[in-house]
Amino acid sequence: MLNIGIIGAGRIGKVHLQSVTRYVTDAKVIALADPFMNAETEEWARSLGVGKLTRDYKEILSDPEVDAVFICSSTDTHSAISLEAIAAGKHIFCEKPVDHDLGKIKAVMQALEGSNVKYQVGFNRRFDHNFAAAREAVANGRIGELAVLKITSRDPGAPPVDYIKVSGGIFLDMTIHDFDMVRFISGEEVTEVYAAGGVTVDPAIGEAGDIDTAVVTLRLESGALAVIDNCRRASYGYDQRLEAFGSKGQVAISNDTASSAVVSDASGVTAEKPLYFFLERYMQAYAAEVEAFVAAVRDDTPVPVGIDAGLQSVLIGVAAKKSLELGRPVKLSEIEF
Amino acid sequence: MLNIGIIGAGRIGKVHLQSVTRYVTDAKVIALADPFMNAETEEWARSLGVGKLTRDYKEILSDPEVDAVFICSSTDTHSAISLEAIAAGKHIFCEKPVDHDLGKIKAVMQALEGSNVKYQVGFNRRFDHNFAAAREAVANGRIGELAVLKITSRDPGAPPVDYIKVSGGIFLDMTIHDFDMVRFISGEEVTEVYAAGGVTVDPAIGEAGDIDTAVVTLRLESGALAVIDNCRRASYGYDQRLEAFGSKGQVAISNDTASSAVVSDASGVTAEKPLYFFLERYMQAYAAEVEAFVAAVRDDTPVPVGIDAGLQSVLIGVAAKKSLELGRPVKLSEIEF
Amino acid sequence: MLNIGIIGAGRIGKVHLQSVTRYVTDAKVIALADPFMNAETEEWARSLGVGKLTRDYKEILSDPEVDAVFICSSTDTHSAISLEAIAAGKHIFCEKPVDHDLGKIKAVMQALEGSNVKYQVGFNRRFDHNFAAAREAVANGRIGELAVLKITSRDPGAPPVDYIKVSGGIFLDMTIHDFDMVRFISGEEVTEVYAAGGVTVDPAIGEAGDIDTAVVTLRLESGALAVIDNCRRASYGYDQRLEAFGSKGQVAISNDTASSAVVSDASGVTAEKPLYFFLERYMQAYAAEVEAFVAAVRDDTPVPVGIDAGLQSVLIGVAAKKSLELGRPVKLSEIEF
Amino acid sequence: MLNIGIIGAGRIGKVHLQSVTRYVTDAKVIALADPFMNAETEEWARSLGVGKLTRDYKEILSDPEVDAVFICSSTDTHSAISLEAIAAGKHIFCEKPVDHDLGKIKAVMQALEGSNVKYQVGFNRRFDHNFAAAREAVANGRIGELAVLKITSRDPGAPPVDYIKVSGGIFLDMTIHDFDMVRFISGEEVTEVYAAGGVTVDPAIGEAGDIDTAVVTLRLESGALAVIDNCRRASYGYDQRLEAFGSKGQVAISNDTASSAVVSDASGVTAEKPLYFFLERYMQAYAAEVEAFVAAVRDDTPVPVGIDAGLQSVLIGVAAKKSLELGRPVKLSEIEF
Repeated sequence: MLNIGIIGAGRIGKVHLQSVTRYVTDAKVIALADPFMNAETEEWARSLGVGKLTRDYKEILSDPEVDAVFICSSTDTHSAISLEAIAAGKHIFCEKPVDHDLGKIKAVMQALEGSNVKYQVGFNRRFDHNFAAAREAVANGRIGELAVLKITSRDPGAPPVDYIKVSGGIFLDMTIHDFDMVRFISGEEVTEVYAAGGVTVDPAIGEAGDIDTAVVTLRLESGALAVIDNCRRASYGYDQRLEAFGSKGQVAISNDTASSAVVSDASGVTAEKPLYFFLERYMQAYAAEVEAFVAAVRDDTPVPVGIDAGLQSVLIGVAAKKSLELGRPVKLSEIEF
Repeated sequence: MLNIGIIGAGRIGKVHLQSVTRYVTDAKVIALADPFMNAETEEWARSLGVGKLTRDYKEILSDPEVDAVFICSSTDTHSAISLEAIAAGKHIFCEKPVDHDLGKIKAVMQALEGSNVKYQVGFNRRFDHNFAAAREAVANGRIGELAVLKITSRDPGAPPVDYIKVSGGIFLDMTIHDFDMVRFISGEEVTEVYAAGGVTVDPAIGEAGDIDTAVVTLRLESGALAVIDNCRRASYGYDQRLEAFGSKGQVAISNDTASSAVVSDASGVTAEKPLYFFLERYMQAYAAEVEAFVAAVRDDTPVPVGIDAGLQSVLIGVAAKKSLELGRPVKLSEIEF
Repeated sequence: MLNIGIIGAGRIGKVHLQSVTRYVTDAKVIALADPFMNAETEEWARSLGVGKLTRDYKEILSDPEVDAVFICSSTDTHSAISLEAIAAGKHIFCEKPVDHDLGKIKAVMQALEGSNVKYQVGFNRRFDHNFAAAREAVANGRIGELAVLKITSRDPGAPPVDYIKVSGGIFLDMTIHDFDMVRFISGEEVTEVYAAGGVTVDPAIGEAGDIDTAVVTLRLESGALAVIDNCRRASYGYDQRLEAFGSKGQVAISNDTASSAVVSDASGVTAEKPLYFFLERYMQAYAAEVEAFVAAVRDDTPVPVGIDAGLQSVLIGVAAKKSLELGRPVKLSEIEF
Repeated sequence: MLNIGIIGAGRIGKVHLQSVTRYVTDAKVIALADPFMNAETEEWARSLGVGKLTRDYKEILSDPEVDAVFICSSTDTHSAISLEAIAAGKHIFCEKPVDHDLGKIKAVMQALEGSNVKYQVGFNRRFDHNFAAAREAVANGRIGELAVLKITSRDPGAPPVDYIKVSGGIFLDMTIHDFDMVRFISGEEVTEVYAAGGVTVDPAIGEAGDIDTAVVTLRLESGALAVIDNCRRASYGYDQRLEAFGSKGQVAISNDTASSAVVSDASGVTAEKPLYFFLERYMQAYAAEVEAFVAAVRDDTPVPVGIDAGLQSVLIGVAAKKSLELGRPVKLSEIEF
């Protein structure tokens, strides 16, 4: 039984607390820290069997009962807490991105060298049934040599502009998942990025220095191409699709819905909208990534999504940002690291 | 070039005139007869190159230029005109059903014996791309031994009650196409019928002695079962689907639409309704059945849908009618013929 | 926290043990009884926190810690154990069917009268997301007045003939779920049944006095019709579909798959097969039905699927059996009870 | 009745001869010219009623019976023959592209000024039911403000390398249709193009100085983005899909198939591949574009696809070519014209 301490009781911290408690065997959340811990959260956490509730995450790091920490705090604290947790000898599950700053990721990577700490990055989509099926079709040769990989990734609605301002920009906040999917599905590294984008959802996002709609073209090692299209708002919900096209064929995955019900009437033939957002869509994936982490710790095997995956996605995101600024494709080799 | 005379300028007569003119090579409509021929029809027919326009179909039968007649008049005249056309040595394409009266069909069959007249019955669905694909899958063994054949057949709206009164009832008017499909897809004869039904669309249909909604179960020679469900009105249009299930798998066909467009918005994910009715849905099939007839005449080969198919479907319809009256399954061997 | 004792550690007993442990909050399995309890089952149950393991279900009935029993033993013991459990004042979740014998169900109903015991029957499909969505569309008027309800229900493979022999026949063993669905979706009672069937899967099933393929037509109170088609074997897996057609439109539900992946290649455009069988397909429904039972006990509200639902489905099954024997439709009023 | 002379009896010339003869009312092909006219083509053309067969297209231009010419010769002759036909006062239907050279297109545009000649360019996809439905959804506001337009366009197999060499390159030969679709669906002009591409199908295409796989990103006047992905070979056939995403929703169109048949068996749930190539896919569109041309001539109304559409698509193609060469986005204003 792996004893887990969760650092950060925001949305994603709560997702992990709930999914570990309900779905993950061989693991238990025994501690939860959040500087803004309130009575409601405390009560809920206690009802799920969490014994230690604190405002100071250091109490978790110093607790000998805690085997592993989940870093679910704000992104700007990820790398610093990672360093402390490594020093404390705790295994680490860190939410994405590890950091917006490549140097800070590098520092975490250096600290991990020589340690026995397992470090997994929270790219939950790798554990989703649809994306896993697409990966399987590519990996087992069903589509032959990959030629073009297409990802559509749209949120049901834009986050508050205050969030946008500290988000690191759409590429490091939202597209980063898609960058990881390009690497996961293709099994290849990205060599060049061209990002086009604009503001079609909310002018306030533009005023905050960000964009809300993007088309990103990526070149892969093999010469294959990938293209990602993002938007912060889709009227019909969370749109998460992918097509991998190759010399022998194509695999495509589409959205999940709450049911397969289709109503035919005078207005048309209508199916359900996609599941609303990531909580609905990826709940099983959140449990599955943690189960994989728990297994890696238990069996002392490599984690399925290591810090290098975290680094590479940020590298691509930084290149995309630069491409948008410069209005030209940017090679990953141009990014200093 | 086969010279055709069409007898009956109602809806289906016009369909054939148009489809022969536009789509059928090696055939030409040279004459059209209808007792209620009006100026509008005359003008339209002339614009399509029809030279002879008459109120008396006998002028077509006696015209030596006419090679074949299309009997598109009201059902109660089909068998009598068939007999006259056989006597006149004209090849015959007769709309379904040949007659509601089994004795009259028998008379036509006897007249055909020993003659050189080709006689094809207008079961157009056999020439539809979807039904043909289902037949192909069954015939080539892809689904193994047939176990259950399911047909859904619904019209977009009920015909006028005055039509219902002379229609011969739903089984001889509407289901007769589905009975033919059971035979066509399965390649088997029907041995027993159980018909259940009621009035859910329009009480006036019930007052006219008919039903508008039916579920008919059929037993086939091999022991396989078929089930047909009909309704005179589907709010979403013409619903024409079929599933054939067997020991190795299933083949299913669904409706055709005007386009593949799917709109996703806040109200759902909406595809188009089925094509509205038989004219939209089966225009290509109407041309294809005539092309097959023309080829059979030209090459002196058997027609693809002979009078026996016309007879068998009426037999099943008569049995279904009796089943509904008696409230029990009826064997086809119970029907005197 | 509701303390549950499970009677019967066969397939379905194990399903409930696992799903209660993993997914159901506010309930705990504290005891498990099975006359053939073995070491492997014991070990597994202990790992899930079950404290009492016994070969004698009476030890569960007499245990004051047990609040509710799940009757998952063989069907022929359901009614007797139900009576004992009622006498012991335990709430009861009983797997379907309550009994093959209508008199024995009646005895349980009588014993329940005046008691405070909650009694729920295990019609899990009512808690499935797809069937629930169809029910919702019918209940909220989206399809208008129901005219025809169609259910396809096929298993991936036939059970052993030894099971078939004690199963009560296909209608009480397999179709009973579909009978319940007819009542659930329509919100109506069945008045008449006509069953046609045969042996297309395995002659040994026929030799055992049963059939493996059936088409059952049902008439409902309102005059609407329902038709169920069953087969003990579908090469492509568990086929669970339904269409409800009414005056305003149709709602249709289709199968669930492991992923939405579609592969297009030279051989066609291929999607995944349906989830293999009921364990894969209905795991969430098993948890949801128990959560509803737990809530009904906790809040002292009516259970969502009471013994009357259990009775009605068996009544329809008995009528279907009689219809098959007599070769004619059977009214439910003909069944003595 | 419009009398048509077709110049060029290659694949597309034959398509027009056949579709005009079979499907287009109010028009007739009376002459056909091809420098390599052979006996087989002559015989076939005569069977379709073409009276004048010649190796010299000038005989068509000088024929007073000919009202309109269809320029279906090789691309390098389009503009010169256009100029001659304008001088001869013939209406013109010209296959795409008008020319690879912008100056030559300009010359044709200048010759048209002040003349009464109708000049239509053969962008057949505008007349396809699926693309037309997508255009309708965008134009009538169903998706709100366009944000991202995505087009997938893949051929079933690459043409011979000898064809590739004179094709003008993938952007002017293949993508040109997609560039026109971007303009047609969006109703906007393109302002900037970024083209990425490579060789994944056949190294010989690369040796011929072309690419066979491309991802092209386009910026539109409004700031909306479009992205086209092309490949010269898709193992599953002709892949012609489009998605238009906007502030209120999305419209998507998918491929057409020969039938709706879906086979479920032990290997999966398999639908048909897309229709094989443009002849199968767009036959109705070829007839519809000609009907529109005939109507424009008859009614003296503007043609639906004028020479400006032909020019703009070539402009975008030239910009795409330059973008690929320079490895950066190219503004349309950079292209001299």
